[in-house]
Parts: sequence; C-alpha cells; structure tokens
Amino acid sequence: MFLQHFGGFAEMGISSNRVEDFLDIACHETNLKISTEAIPPLEIHRVCLPPKQTTIQKLKQRLSEIFFPDDPLYRFKNQTLFRKMVLGLEYFFPIFQWGSSYSFSLLRSDFISGLTIASLAIPQGISYAKLANLPPIIGLYSSFVPPLIYSVLGSSRHLGVGPVSIASLVMGTMLDETISYTEEPVLYLKLAFTATFFAGLFQASLGLFRLGFIIDFLSKATLVGFMAGAAVIVSLQQLKGLLGIVHFTSKMQIIPSMRKPKLFWISAAAPLTSVILSTLLVFLFKSKVHEISAIGHLPKGMNPPSAKMLYFHGPYLVLAIKTGITTGILSLTEGIAVGRTFASLKNYQVDGNKEMMAIGLMNMAGSCSSCYVTTGNHLLRSFSRSAVNYNAGAQTAVSNIVMAAAVLVTLLFLMPLFYYTPNVILAAIIITAVIGLIDYQAAFRLWKVDKLDFLACLCSFFGVLFISVQMGLAVAVGVSVFKILLHVTRPNSVVLGNIPGTQIYLNISCYGEAIRVPSFLILAIESPIYFANSNYLQERILRWVREEEERIQANKESIMQCIVLDMTAVTAIDTSGIEAIHELRKTLDKRSLQLVLVNPVGNVMEKLHGSKFLESFGPNGLYLSVGEAVADISSLWKAQL
Amino acid sequence: MFLQHFGGFAEMGISSNRVEDFLDIACHETNLKISTEAIPPLEIHRVCLPPKQTTIQKLKQRLSEIFFPDDPLYRFKNQTLFRKMVLGLEYFFPIFQWGSSYSFSLLRSDFISGLTIASLAIPQGISYAKLANLPPIIGLYSSFVPPLIYSVLGSSRHLGVGPVSIASLVMGTMLDETISYTEEPVLYLKLAFTATFFAGLFQASLGLFRLGFIIDFLSKATLVGFMAGAAVIVSLQQLKGLLGIVHFTSKMQIIPSMRKPKLFWISAAAPLTSVILSTLLVFLFKSKVHEISAIGHLPKGMNPPSAKMLYFHGPYLVLAIKTGITTGILSLTEGIAVGRTFASLKNYQVDGNKEMMAIGLMNMAGSCSSCYVTTGNHLLRSFSRSAVNYNAGAQTAVSNIVMAAAVLVTLLFLMPLFYYTPNVILAAIIITAVIGLIDYQAAFRLWKVDKLDFLACLCSFFGVLFISVQMGLAVAVGVSVFKILLHVTRPNSVVLGNIPGTQIYLNISCYGEAIRVPSFLILAIESPIYFANSNYLQERILRWVREEEERIQANKESIMQCIVLDMTAVTAIDTSGIEAIHELRKTLDKRSLQLVLVNPVGNVMEKLHGSKFLESFGPNGLYLSVGEAVADISSLWKAQL
Repeated sequence: MFLQHFGGFAEMGISSNRVEDFLDIACHETNLKISTEAIPPLEIHRVCLPPKQTTIQKLKQRLSEIFFPDDPLYRFKNQTLFRKMVLGLEYFFPIFQWGSSYSFSLLRSDFISGLTIASLAIPQGISYAKLANLPPIIGLYSSFVPPLIYSVLGSSRHLGVGPVSIASLVMGTMLDETISYTEEPVLYLKLAFTATFFAGLFQASLGLFRLGFIIDFLSKATLVGFMAGAAVIVSLQQLKGLLGIVHFTSKMQIIPSMRKPKLFWISAAAPLTSVILSTLLVFLFKSKVHEISAIGHLPKGMNPPSAKMLYFHGPYLVLAIKTGITTGILSLTEGIAVGRTFASLKNYQVDGNKEMMAIGLMNMAGSCSSCYVTTGNHLLRSFSRSAVNYNAGAQTAVSNIVMAAAVLVTLLFLMPLFYYTPNVILAAIIITAVIGLIDYQAAFRLWKVDKLDFLACLCSFFGVLFISVQMGLAVAVGVSVFKILLHVTRPNSVVLGNIPGTQIYLNISCYGEAIRVPSFLILAIESPIYFANSNYLQERILRWVREEEERIQANKESIMQCIVLDMTAVTAIDTSGIEAIHELRKTLDKRSLQLVLVNPVGNVMEKLHGSKFLESFGPNGLYLSVGEAVADISSLWKAQL
Repeated sequence: MFLQHFGGFAEMGISSNRVEDFLDIACHETNLKISTEAIPPLEIHRVCLPPKQTTIQKLKQRLSEIFFPDDPLYRFKNQTLFRKMVLGLEYFFPIFQWGSSYSFSLLRSDFISGLTIASLAIPQGISYAKLANLPPIIGLYSSFVPPLIYSVLGSSRHLGVGPVSIASLVMGTMLDETISYTEEPVLYLKLAFTATFFAGLFQASLGLFRLGFIIDFLSKATLVGFMAGAAVIVSLQQLKGLLGIVHFTSKMQIIPSMRKPKLFWISAAAPLTSVILSTLLVFLFKSKVHEISAIGHLPKGMNPPSAKMLYFHGPYLVLAIKTGITTGILSLTEGIAVGRTFASLKNYQVDGNKEMMAIGLMNMAGSCSSCYVTTGNHLLRSFSRSAVNYNAGAQTAVSNIVMAAAVLVTLLFLMPLFYYTPNVILAAIIITAVIGLIDYQAAFRLWKVDKLDFLACLCSFFGVLFISVQMGLAVAVGVSVFKILLHVTRPNSVVLGNIPGTQIYLNISCYGEAIRVPSFLILAIESPIYFANSNYLQERILRWVREEEERIQANKESIMQCIVLDMTAVTAIDTSGIEAIHELRKTLDKRSLQLVLVNPVGNVMEKLHGSKFLESFGPNGLYLSVGEAVADISSLWKAQL
C-alpha cells in the first residue's frame, strides 16, 4: 500500500528505499512492471505547497506585481545617497540622462529631423485645430509649448509631439454636441482648455498611481477598427469642403513612402508645399476668384496664458471632464504605443507609467498656455519610422526643441502669410492624414490569425461609424472585455492520451499517435476555474464522462474506473471553483468513479489545502504527473485483484 | 544536426533510426549522454497542429460550445420519430417524465411536505408582499398560480415556489423611488405586474437563447455579501415597526433547526403559529388595545386576472423594464442555485437554461393573474434541506400542487381570519427570514480560502448597505468581472527548475529540490496571452532575464544563453500576444539570447502558425517538452564547441 501525502501530512510519509532517491522528498517505488524496457521504474513525487506566507506578505507581493511589475526603482538599489539623487533627477527629467553626452553630430540630425517634423506639424496643427472646431492658431500654439515640455520630461527620444487627428475629432464631436463654437466662442474655448486640463490630470494620475495598464484594454484590434471608423467620419466631413481635389489627395496616399525612403521627402514636404502653393495661388488670383474660403486673419505672437480660462464650476463641468478623460485616454493609447514601438526599434525600454505622467504634465501645462490635447504623433510616426528616424535621423528629444523653435518663428513672424491659405487645402491635409489611419492590411491580418480579434475590430469600426465616437470607444472596450470573459466562461477541456513508450500525455484530438489509457479518462482543463465557469466545467466534465461511457459501451472496452484531471493549466481557482470540484467528486463517487487531481500549481494547491477539501480525497487523490497517477492507480488495482 | 519541424514542414523530417520508434512520428535520438543511468536516451517529438478545420466548422464548434455545452438534445440522437416526440414532450413538460411512475407513497410524502411548505408560504407571502409595498393579498396570489405552473414545466422536483425576500425588497425599493403605493395604488400595482411580466420575459429569453451563463457572473461570493447587505436593510426597515419583540425573533433563529431535524417542526411551524396566536390575542383584546396596526380587510376569492393592467407604453415603461430585469436576474440566481443544489443532492441534472424558461413562463403567467415575481425559495430551501426533504420528504413537484391547493383553500375561505393579524408579527416573520440570509460562516470561509472573493463579498455588502440595492448589484457584478480581469492582466510567470534524475520541471520557488539548468532560463507563463497582458508579460519576462543575469553575475555562474518559455498553460493567444512574443524575440536576439517555445496547445499553435511567426524561429525554436528542449539545445552547443 502506497501513501500519497501533502502539506501537513508529510510526517506520515514512509521513508524511501531507492538508491537514486534524491534530496529529502518522500518518494516511493511502485510495485509496477511496465512491459516496455525504455520506461524506467516509476517514482512518485509528492505535490508541494508553496512556501508559507502571511496574508500581509502575499498582499504586498500581489500589489507590487500589479503596480510595479517592471520594478521601476531597481536602478536605485544598493547605490550611495548621492548616486540615488542623481538617478532620481535622471528618472524625473530624462534630459539629464542623455544631456551630458549630447554631441554636435547628434544636434545635426536632430536639427534636420526637427525641421522636417515642423514642416509637417505646422499645416497639420492648423488643420487638426479645425477638426476640433477650434481656431487654427490653437493648433500652432499646441505645437509649441507641449513639445518643449515633453523634451524635458519624456523618456522616449523619438516621439514627435503635437495635436493628433483622433483626439481632435473626439474633442470636436463631444463639445459640439452641447455648445457651438460659432455661437459661443469663448465658452467653447474655455471648455476645450478645461478638457485638456482634465485630460492631462487624468493621464498624470494614471501614471502616478501606476494604473497605466488600463489603456491596454483598448486592444490593438479594436483600435484598428476605431481609427478606421473615425477616419471615414472625418473624411466624409471634410469632403463637403473639398469638392474636386479628392483625386489629388488620394494620389498623395498612393506614393509608397514607407517602402522607398527617398520618396519620403515628397510625401513629407507635400503638406507644406501644397499650403504654400495654394496660398500663393489664392493670393495671386484673389481679384478673380471670390468664393474660395480662406483662413483669414491670425494673431501674431507666442501662446497667450489661458490658466484663467479654465472652467472649474458651472453646468458644463461634467462635459469638460468627460471630454477630457475620453481624449486623454485616446491620446495616451496613441502616444504610448508610438513610444513603445520606437523604444523596441532602438532597443531601450520606456516606462509606460512615467511616460503617462510626462504626457499628462505636458497637457496640464498646455491647458494653461492656450493649447489643446497633444500627444506622441501617430502620423509623424509612420513618416518618422521610414524616414525621419532612419534618414533624417532623430536621435534625441532635441528634435522636439528644434521643431518648437520653428513653430515659434512661424508664430512670431509668418502668421500673416496664412491669410490667404484656402480652407480646402486644410481639408485635403486632414483627409490625407486620416486616410493613413485606415489600416486594411492590419484588419486582414486580424482576420487571418484571430477571427474574434477581427470581430472586435469590425464592432468598433461600425460602432464609431453608425452610433457615435464615444459609443464606438465604449463598444471597443466592451468587445475586448467580452472576448476575455468569453474565453473565461467557456474554457477548453480536452481528453489526453499517452504517447506510447513515454510519460507524455497529449490531446488526442490533436496528436493522432496519443492513445487512450484503458479504464482511465484523462482530462486537461485549460483555464482557471472561476465562478464564471465552474458550473460550465462541472457539466462539461460530466458530459465527457457520459460520452466516454457511451464510447466504451459501443466498442465493448473495459469499463471506466478513474477520472484524472490534469490541472497544470488551471492557473487559479476561487471558492466557486473549489465547490464545483467538490460537487463533481461527490457526483462521480455516486457512480463509483474515482476522481484524481494532477499537478495543481502553487496557489491552486494552497487554496485546495486551505479549504480542507483535499482531505476528502484520501491518499490516492493527488499526483504530480499524469504518468505517475496512472501507474500508481493501476498498480493499486492489480494489488486488489 | 537535428531538425525540429511542424505543420507544413513535416516533409523536411529525417526518418527515424530507433527501434522503439512508434507510429509515424518523426523523432530523433539526440547524441546526448546524461550521467544518471535512470534517464533513458531522449527522443524528440514534434509539436503538431490541430486537425485542419474550415472557419465555418470552427465557428460551429465554438458556438455549440458556448450555447450548448451540455448537449441538451443528446437523448434525442438515434431515436425513432415516435420516441423523439415522447422525449420532446417530456423535455418541455417534465411532469410526463415522473407522472407515469407516480405512486401513492410518493403522494403521501408530497402531501405532508406540501402542507408544511404552505404553512410557511402563507405568512411569508403576506409579509414579502408588504416588503414590496404591495397589498398582502398579492403575496398569497403569488403562492397559488406560479407553483401550479412550475409543477408542470419545471425540471427540479424539490423546489418550493413563491415570492422571495430579495426580489420583493428590490422591487419595492426600485418602484418606490418613483411612485408611492399609498398615493397612486393602481399605477403602482400596474407597474409591479408589468415588472413581473418583463422579469419573466427576460428570464424566458435568457433560457431560450441559452444565455443562462450570464447569471454565473453573480458569483456566490458576491451574492453572500449582497444578501447580507439586503438582509440588514430589510431588518432595519422592519425594526421600526417591531418594537419590543426583537428578542423573540432572534431566539427563533437560534434554534438549530438544521442540525436537529426534530426541532425543525418548531421552526417550520413558528410563523403560522405566531400569526394565529397573535391574531387571536389582538382579536380578544381589541377592545382594550387600540394602537396595534393590523392587516385589515382582505378580499376573498381566487386570483383576479391582471393582463389588462400590464403597462406597455407611457413614461414609466423604462422603470418597469429595469425593475423587471433586476428582480428577474436576482430571482433566477436564487432559483437556479437552489435547483442545482437539490439536483446534486438527489443525483439528477438540472438543465439551467430550460429551468430559466420554466421560471420565466411562470412569471409571465403570474403577471396576468395578479402575481408578482416568484422563484424557487431560498428560505424554504434551508428548511427543506434539513427537514421537508429528509423527514417530510418532498419527492416530486406534486408538493407544489398540494401547497397551491392549501393556499387556494386559504384564499377562498380563510381570508377574514387575517383581519386582526397585527403588522408587527409580519415584520417579525420578515426579519426572521432575512436574518437567515446573513451567512457569516460562508463569509469566514471566503476569507480563509480566497481573500479576493472575500473582498468581492465585502464590496457588494457595503454597496447594498451604503449606496443602493441596484448599485450594490452593479458593484457585485463589477467586482466579479474586475477579479477576472485582474487575473488576466497580471498573470503569474514562474521560473522552472529540473528535479534531478527526471524530465520533470517545476516551479523553483515552490519545489526546493528543483534546480536551475546552467545557461538556461526556463519560464512558465500561467495565463493566456492577450492584449490585456501582452505588454505586461513582455516587460515581466525581460525583468526575469535582467534579474537572472544579475544573479548569474553575483554568483559567477556560466552565462545565460537560452530562454525557454513553457507555454503549456498558455491556453489562448491573440494578435497582440503574438506580436508581444515577436518583439520579445527580437529584443532577446539583440542581446544574443535564444528564445525557445515549448508545448503550445492546439489553438495557440494554430495561431502562431497562421501568423507566419513560427518561421522566424527556425528549426530549434519549438519543442514538445522542456526536457527535450534543454537536451537538444545543449547537445547542439556541445557539437558547436
């Protein structure tokens, strides 16, 4: 008779009698003879409990895993106080990190890339501000202060900062539902700045409280759909003012700037060139053409302060906060994703939470200096990736400073030049920019690899298109969460078979060579067992049993005596799960079927033990591997014969 | 040189040269010598793709797993048409299933238990109706029609049907927020019946569309908290009218009726006895005591029809639907849980979805015959379990018919007797009933086994107590979902070590005897890889690598060369997950570290293959077990030396 034991039962163990017995595990030779010579005599190992921890210790570990998974302060460990202070300074102001080693050659590439970005940012800034129903000048202001702040605080060195189309669109839509800019321009501006302030506050708080993982719930699949939907809306909106020039803009997009770096210059210079050309044309023919609407007068000079315009009480506060949080989370998704991509390309790590604090502070500062929501730029990324990064070569955040300087020069001296810029060209720029957001190749990849991801993508696309931007966002998050819940609610359970001559047990529907072990039904459960699936799993396992019994009856095989549950992939269990296994065992008991658990992982083992449920299993209810379970139980049966 | 292959690469396999080689797996002996004699020469097995399926087939399988996991129609397979019709009749009207074998002895126990339930149901019906701010007679009506319908349609044979405290409380609270019964009694009644109708419609639709699993999201842990919170609210409400009799009711509860079946009769008979005694006392002393409020006049006769009172348009329709869905889902949770418990005690299975249709139809019929929301009774269960089931012994649904008959007799002849029943005794009955819902022992068990479950319980308790009943319910669901998401967002990853002399690899922090393999870092990921955790896992794995490198440097061990990811517990992957592994591989590549995947399960393998990502891994990037990966890669290294 052989005794399986666990936890506090260790003292009942019978000491081992094998030479190869190692360390101090109580293991026992089975009196089993297996015909194949290749298999060594089987040892049985006991299932261990994880080392004891107090609730406080567990809580501490759990919380640090939730909030500090990247161990952001590891650099500070075992350092002198002075070094710690230097590191702290570098941590909060990354400029000190690369500032000391900054060289002239770096400056040169930063200078070129800064100017390139500026030539994109100026026309885009004006256009995106119009998308948010804001005066064009706000777009330029937003391309000046935020990049400067980001260059000091931000840890990504390759991020071009400025307004982005999606956040502009969402802000415009949400505010415009309640207030019209043309009717109440001052209130609208106030709300836009207030929304920017709350966006910044929200972003900074997410970072500060290390809740950055929340933005992970906007999965890439849903974002692909969301972006495409928003792009379609924006394009349709702008098409109204665009008339006949559509062909021009769609041709622009066809230039495959990503693949042929040299063509990039055409693509990058196009917005500015078309602004200059069209402005010139309108200026020259202004006496002949009267019906072209142009930007008109823009004020000269740097950002005026706007802290006094923030709106902290009154009937529209809720609207401002809602708009702020929505645009804040959207621009974060974009900014962080871009930062991560660059970091991975250049092989350095970006601390997402710190980055959020930087973006948040940048927006809070922006809201006090007449800027609206800004972030790392998605469109700039697609260019930067192909060209600014590898050809012009942005090396550090100084490129943002250069760009801000260029914008400043524009603000101080060049504003009158925009007087004749036709609105139609801004619409064209917007469409060109947003059409790039329709990533049909990504959608096709989603379809090929993961149908549910594709469905999530479609849902958010149509949500944005046919319901509303906010609802589209809500649908996107909803679908993502639903996908997780669906997987949790209906997990896989598979029948395992033995690969002859080995101790390996694999899914028989996938591995044709795996064969069923007579008298055993070996099931692997591929999911945590939770309240959300405990009923399902209980019923599903009983169905497996029923089907196996029918199969056995049909094939006249030896009757089933034992159900082995391989719990390797059951990574967690809760009280409902424990209860489900308990009831399953009772039900199987009534049918004279033995239930055996195999290899519960640490925390599952702990909970099974804590619930005193394991005690009801007796000595032969828990094994470390399927092979050991099958061998030991069959040998017991032989002994009983 | 050894070639690892998969899927379409199978044709590249070199044929095997071992005698024990089995079936047609391409397996290869390694030129590895391991010192321990016990380990047999290692064979390498290839990782297989699951059998090819079209998208339609996959969709079909997936949908049937979501909606028909219990294969409810399996009884109908391979039967004659006549037999199928009989089975169908039995399926929809379970009364035909047990009706034919009904005997006199069964009737006797059903009769006794039916009367027992009635003696509880009459005073409780009156009391619960008051809880819902409805006239007491509605409570009696609700104990007549619904049990009759359930006895025909329901598949649980041991369920006592009637109004329940929680649903009554919730309906009362929700309707009373907008409309007062005392001011607009007809409108209030209309809304109550309409809410009942929608509760039934919602329940029946859940069952019909096989969405019953939705109620699983109200986990038992949160329900324990919710019930306790609701019980406290009800008790405090009723205490106002109760004055000095509190001691009496709390003493009632102390009687340990569960453990001592004989005492059960005292407990079961108490409500009716106290109603009779108190009514008698008030009747006898009515001339002397003037200030006791009593029920007053109740109409005699059967349920009047109320179909015309249903309210399908107008300003309060939304309120009625909301109340209906809330009470519907709450009473389902109760009814299904009770049904399942009985089924498991008596070893028969209850089809949750069909049961929901029965309860839903019962409520829809009820709403047309002056009844409000009813379900399988929780309080009756606690009695039934101890006594009605085992002593009086309800055997079939006939007990519900007997009970309905007893209620009918009361309705027809005994109504005037309630004239003097003091309201205070109804308050006492309610308190006695609801205090039983405070299951502090269950809460203590939750604390001991699963701290997060306990937290969910606390949250819903305080949510009900301090915010509102609906918010408490929302909090309860929210906390449950949050718990799942938290586990998904922050999954475990553990370092594995080898148990010397075996091919077993286990968590080194849990199994002290497991030792690290030099030059390898073996990580097991204990979760699906999703958009919600792909960034986290990527960063976490890089942190493991960094920490391992620091450890190696500190201990001057041989440098790390290979990271092995054990994917056994990675039960699913999505596009973000694939991208994360892809980026991880690139990052590790730049540090000259090899990444190897081990044992991806069927659908993960399929997606990895579909994304063409595996091709970048080359021949030595995928193994079936950690042991094979370690052995094969070390042998390759030796060959390269």
